[in-house]
Amino acid sequence: MTTTERPRYSVIGTRPIRHDGIDKVTGRALYGNDIDVPGHISGAILRSPYAHARIKSIDTSRSAALPGVRAIVTGKDMPYVSPKLHEQGEGSLVNLGMLSRNCMAQDKALFAGHAVAAVAADSAIIADQALKLIDVDYEVLSPVMDGLEAMAPGAPVLMEDLKTNTASLFRGGGFKKDDEPNFETNVASSFVLEIGDLANGFELADIVIEHDYHVGEAHQGYIEPQSATALWGPDGHLTIWCSSQGHFSIRDLTAGILQIPVGSIKVVPLEIGGGFGAKLFTTIEPVAALLSMKCGKPVKITLSRADVFDAVGPTSAAHVHVKMGVTNEGRLTAGESRLVFEAGAFPGSPVIGAATCMFTPYDIPNLRVEGFDVLVNKPKVTAYRAPGAPAGALAVETVIDEFCERLGMDPLEFRLLNAAKEGTRRVTGVASPRIGCIETLEAARDSDHYRAPISGPHRGRGVAAGFWGNAPGQASVTASILADGTVTLVEGSPDIGGTRTTAAMQLAEALGIPAEQVRPSVGDTDAVGFTSLTGGSSVAFKQGVAANEVAKDLIAQLRARAAKMWTANPEDVVYGDGAVSLKSDPGKRLTLKQMAARLNETGGPIVGRAAVSPGGVGASHAVHIADVEVDPETGKVTVLRYTTVVDAGTAIHPGYVEGQMQGGASQGIGWALNEEFVYNSEGQLLNSSFLDYRMPTTLDVPPIETVIVEVPNPGHPFGVRGVGEIVIVPPLAAIANAIAQATGKRMREVPMNARRVLESLSANGSSPK
Amino acid sequence: MTTTERPRYSVIGTRPIRHDGIDKVTGRALYGNDIDVPGHISGAILRSPYAHARIKSIDTSRSAALPGVRAIVTGKDMPYVSPKLHEQGEGSLVNLGMLSRNCMAQDKALFAGHAVAAVAADSAIIADQALKLIDVDYEVLSPVMDGLEAMAPGAPVLMEDLKTNTASLFRGGGFKKDDEPNFETNVASSFVLEIGDLANGFELADIVIEHDYHVGEAHQGYIEPQSATALWGPDGHLTIWCSSQGHFSIRDLTAGILQIPVGSIKVVPLEIGGGFGAKLFTTIEPVAALLSMKCGKPVKITLSRADVFDAVGPTSAAHVHVKMGVTNEGRLTAGESRLVFEAGAFPGSPVIGAATCMFTPYDIPNLRVEGFDVLVNKPKVTAYRAPGAPAGALAVETVIDEFCERLGMDPLEFRLLNAAKEGTRRVTGVASPRIGCIETLEAARDSDHYRAPISGPHRGRGVAAGFWGNAPGQASVTASILADGTVTLVEGSPDIGGTRTTAAMQLAEALGIPAEQVRPSVGDTDAVGFTSLTGGSSVAFKQGVAANEVAKDLIAQLRARAAKMWTANPEDVVYGDGAVSLKSDPGKRLTLKQMAARLNETGGPIVGRAAVSPGGVGASHAVHIADVEVDPETGKVTVLRYTTVVDAGTAIHPGYVEGQMQGGASQGIGWALNEEFVYNSEGQLLNSSFLDYRMPTTLDVPPIETVIVEVPNPGHPFGVRGVGEIVIVPPLAAIANAIAQATGKRMREVPMNARRVLESLSANGSSPK
Repeated sequence: MTTTERPRYSVIGTRPIRHDGIDKVTGRALYGNDIDVPGHISGAILRSPYAHARIKSIDTSRSAALPGVRAIVTGKDMPYVSPKLHEQGEGSLVNLGMLSRNCMAQDKALFAGHAVAAVAADSAIIADQALKLIDVDYEVLSPVMDGLEAMAPGAPVLMEDLKTNTASLFRGGGFKKDDEPNFETNVASSFVLEIGDLANGFELADIVIEHDYHVGEAHQGYIEPQSATALWGPDGHLTIWCSSQGHFSIRDLTAGILQIPVGSIKVVPLEIGGGFGAKLFTTIEPVAALLSMKCGKPVKITLSRADVFDAVGPTSAAHVHVKMGVTNEGRLTAGESRLVFEAGAFPGSPVIGAATCMFTPYDIPNLRVEGFDVLVNKPKVTAYRAPGAPAGALAVETVIDEFCERLGMDPLEFRLLNAAKEGTRRVTGVASPRIGCIETLEAARDSDHYRAPISGPHRGRGVAAGFWGNAPGQASVTASILADGTVTLVEGSPDIGGTRTTAAMQLAEALGIPAEQVRPSVGDTDAVGFTSLTGGSSVAFKQGVAANEVAKDLIAQLRARAAKMWTANPEDVVYGDGAVSLKSDPGKRLTLKQMAARLNETGGPIVGRAAVSPGGVGASHAVHIADVEVDPETGKVTVLRYTTVVDAGTAIHPGYVEGQMQGGASQGIGWALNEEFVYNSEGQLLNSSFLDYRMPTTLDVPPIETVIVEVPNPGHPFGVRGVGEIVIVPPLAAIANAIAQATGKRMREVPMNARRVLESLSANGSSPK
Repeated sequence: MTTTERPRYSVIGTRPIRHDGIDKVTGRALYGNDIDVPGHISGAILRSPYAHARIKSIDTSRSAALPGVRAIVTGKDMPYVSPKLHEQGEGSLVNLGMLSRNCMAQDKALFAGHAVAAVAADSAIIADQALKLIDVDYEVLSPVMDGLEAMAPGAPVLMEDLKTNTASLFRGGGFKKDDEPNFETNVASSFVLEIGDLANGFELADIVIEHDYHVGEAHQGYIEPQSATALWGPDGHLTIWCSSQGHFSIRDLTAGILQIPVGSIKVVPLEIGGGFGAKLFTTIEPVAALLSMKCGKPVKITLSRADVFDAVGPTSAAHVHVKMGVTNEGRLTAGESRLVFEAGAFPGSPVIGAATCMFTPYDIPNLRVEGFDVLVNKPKVTAYRAPGAPAGALAVETVIDEFCERLGMDPLEFRLLNAAKEGTRRVTGVASPRIGCIETLEAARDSDHYRAPISGPHRGRGVAAGFWGNAPGQASVTASILADGTVTLVEGSPDIGGTRTTAAMQLAEALGIPAEQVRPSVGDTDAVGFTSLTGGSSVAFKQGVAANEVAKDLIAQLRARAAKMWTANPEDVVYGDGAVSLKSDPGKRLTLKQMAARLNETGGPIVGRAAVSPGGVGASHAVHIADVEVDPETGKVTVLRYTTVVDAGTAIHPGYVEGQMQGGASQGIGWALNEEFVYNSEGQLLNSSFLDYRMPTTLDVPPIETVIVEVPNPGHPFGVRGVGEIVIVPPLAAIANAIAQATGKRMREVPMNARRVLESLSANGSSPK
């Protein structure tokens, strides 16, 4: 671990057992489908077999007549929500109309798997039979399955009245809402980011390289399929039990889609078996709610694995065009990119993520990125760890690798020469705050891995850098002191990567007590204040700010209480090392535990609260090193060694940071080499199972080596940056560069599976040399 | 409703629909037995058939061999806890050793129904079979079933080493711990309360009356039998789901009995189907926990109705001797009482409740009360609404009725002449604060009922007054403002009588918003700060204080936020009528709802907290009026008309106050006329079912008329006193007085059932005349 400027901590940086660990490894933790609300019945969803079809009519009469069927919902039951950006109650902008139509098709089915009706019945078997008795009359239309084709004149159009512009126009760092769509076709939105003078930048270059890349969609592959139980009471109060990456988001979006007040909904969070971005927004909850409203019973919908693949989007497939210029001395002068990202059937690809990250590890004065969010007849994409960034990094980092090859420079030294640092102007026009780009590059250069030579036939080493901005958000917590000195902490962030523990550790640090003395839990939407999504690598960051604030509240009360007990001036009471003491008489000292035992007799319980919306988000940088061996006969790529270097700011629990790094690298390796969605000509997914959608197993990845760099984020009380997403940015590029070194062939299509590698090996002239 | 000095409220005093009402009337609310923790198995308890027996050995081998049996617990598995007063973590004194032995017998079974072993098995049927295979070798001993007999020399002794003195010695208002027991027999503790000069007091009297009374035990008769599910994880964390009158109490007592830290236990409260005092302390939870620890699975124990009658105590049976003196002018000069209260098998009768309440409605300068807490071979008594007070009131109020008869005075005018008021010295030596004794007497005198004549043969009217001190306690709450202006309120008091709503109403009043805009819920022990029992009529009182404090916290934050939004001085921002506004520019105004919609964009969520341990408890006074008709042929007493007058301080929700008044009166009528425990000569209960234990039905009680008096409690922000217990103090006496007027015979044994009434009618000389 490389650490700079870090204060001395007693809890932060240690590796306590996670508070929820035993429950999870013993199978006791309750996930979405584990909750059985008394009297609940089964919900099931009918999905369109066609990728693009007009729904002429739906006849539910045969289905409704089946004994045991309690409720049927179709698009007609969904309240009308206009397809425009809605200001959500809690401040964010969401296109609720689009989200509603994704939950349940209205006049058209826009992808194979699109929900067209739902049933609630006394058993799952009856519900399944009932689906088969729903008669949908489709007019089948031609689908368009590729982003570039969807932009071409004459392409099938998904939404005739598409007038939405979900993203906005950036230019030179400015920000301007552009209400008029730029295209009349399937382009949901577009934007340009620009700094400097691009033409001049390319004029200054001695070498210019330009390529096209394509990255296929990848699925997050979380273990737990979506599951939600909804109970709509006759008083209009709706309770939803589900696992998600934000129960407040589920509440607010469900309220928006169903057009009911947020105050009438309670969402109870269950443990989440992986999300990676795919469980940020609502999918089945409004449907379960409407079924419950119709039948008056709790309704549970649990997706099958096939449903998850067919209908709850993977990340975007992307076409990336990139052009970069460099001087003979190795100085980057210009970068240009055109990004066409597939949104799936509804707007919202992460093209902005690619655009804002791809060039950001570097100080390049002249940049232009054009981005397009394009509808195609595939499931609406969902976020997937650093959404958009891996595809952008693939293009930039492999072009840089070509530069290094041409210039004969070490790829890490080249990157260090061009590395972004505090003050570097980004493509958004904003100057970089204190970041760890240089430190991660240096740590990679100095790592065991990089210093070890690689040799042997068909072997190669690739490196790639990556950037991710991380997100802010809101967090609310409450904390109480129990009589034995335990401090309970209630927070509102569903815990995916151990964030209950990192929040507890930051509270423990602030209170000067052991991590085990804090007992954290995740409260439902009625039990704790608004807390934004578990996404954007925000949780350790914002919950740390909240934990620090709630500690201040508790400490102020402990000081006041001690002052009362000692009849001392509160100003004379100080708190430190887990105890109150008297400045004027240091012999007077009571630990938090001692105070705790006497709270009720000395004035009552002590409860603290904090609600924060912190600025000061710290961006993350990473460098990955991959060694591969390519089998020239089969095209199979074996990853021999892999190291991931990440600037965590401060690693609250290094074990979990390493877990994120290893998980992100493994997912990146899978995406780079194997994972892909295979559609037939009619737009139907052919590999919607874990057997056919090939994620890496332990046999496919080597032990992932980790190097945590700590350049504390000055905007956070403990220096946290966030590590959940940055970890997946470099792998595609690092492996592509390693394959290039091993084979002399540049792969520009992901996944770089055996077939493609074999094709590249047998092709002529695709080598850059 | 008679109201004095009350401020103008907009929410308080209205009758909104209770927030949990729909869930409860539609059967959706989850009670103790409604929760099915995944993988849970069934627990069952083996009970002693003998009222008094030495347990020579327990052989569980046959039971353990039964397939499906997962765990067996006997007294040997209970950690040793010494039988002395333990200071509970949260500040209260409890005899954990006695509580432990009540949960599971050690060397002796002390009542028929005493738990001697417990089993967890894969099904309830197997658990039941397994109980039958446990071989307990008993040495049967003679039981003692009456308090006076238990005090007599030579009585069977329950505990040879009884050295406990649960209550303490009061004298002249002083308070002194008396660690030495006063008796070597079955007396667990004794005390004397004394003010003035008793001999002198009786010298001043013109008339002295002296009688002995006996009140049989009555059961609370709650609808929901006890049920608890426990899950003890391998990390030592114990989770308990149960309904109770205080999940913090269940947590703390279970921790004490099992000798584990409170911080390792979480208790999740479920809705409670009645408690009335019987669910304040733990009974089955430690047993379920030990079974779970042994088998590693969640274990649920649900009692049968017979278990409830046999083993979860009724209130005390009591022998009350009383002697009082009065002048010919009707001035009370002296009062003396000797109270022998049965504790059941373990110390803890409510004799102190009788002692401190019986004379307190009156200004009597010379008083002496001697109290004895006596063990007998019956279930350990539990609290039952104003524990102890009804038996004391029976004695005092019927003697006063005799005085009125002798003096020819109206019973209400007599009581008004002697009524306690602010400054009156009580038997504890403490001077009364502002109370509503006179106001309740006046309201009774002026009531429709009292002004209506009663006539006809065998009819009579009785009145009685009552006093109850109410209890303080701790309460913690948190509150959050949702985007639509709804305010969530999390509190820690299980809601028996609508207290979620009264807490929400007091918060709404303080915030100037409608009651429906507050969404209250009860948090588990990890989710909210320590909150003391739902008992002692404390909840509306302490939760009101907490609600008022949390409103202050929210308002302070709203003012600061508004100041920021308006770039104004926070001192210039005021909050009133549900809105912030600018003192200097009243046109600037934002309602809480308007603020709520903009919180996240203006700095983040707002969360409030309060933790209080308020003083200022306000005592309650009541007067009941009963008209009865006695059938001279059968002895059956019919209640013709019944009115209850109570000083609520402030009635937050008058409908719930009336509900308490009507419920308490109905229970009092049942206790007065029908309910009793029938034991055979071996100490076995013969009527442990609702069929044989005869509680009143709607056919047995007339509509109960209610008169709410409001003499605000000056110690509470909204004047609340508490009404849950006072309502059951006068009925025994009021009905006894009515029967006396109807028949000329004084009943001094409760229940005054048909047999006893008939016997009194045929007896000679038992009339006071």
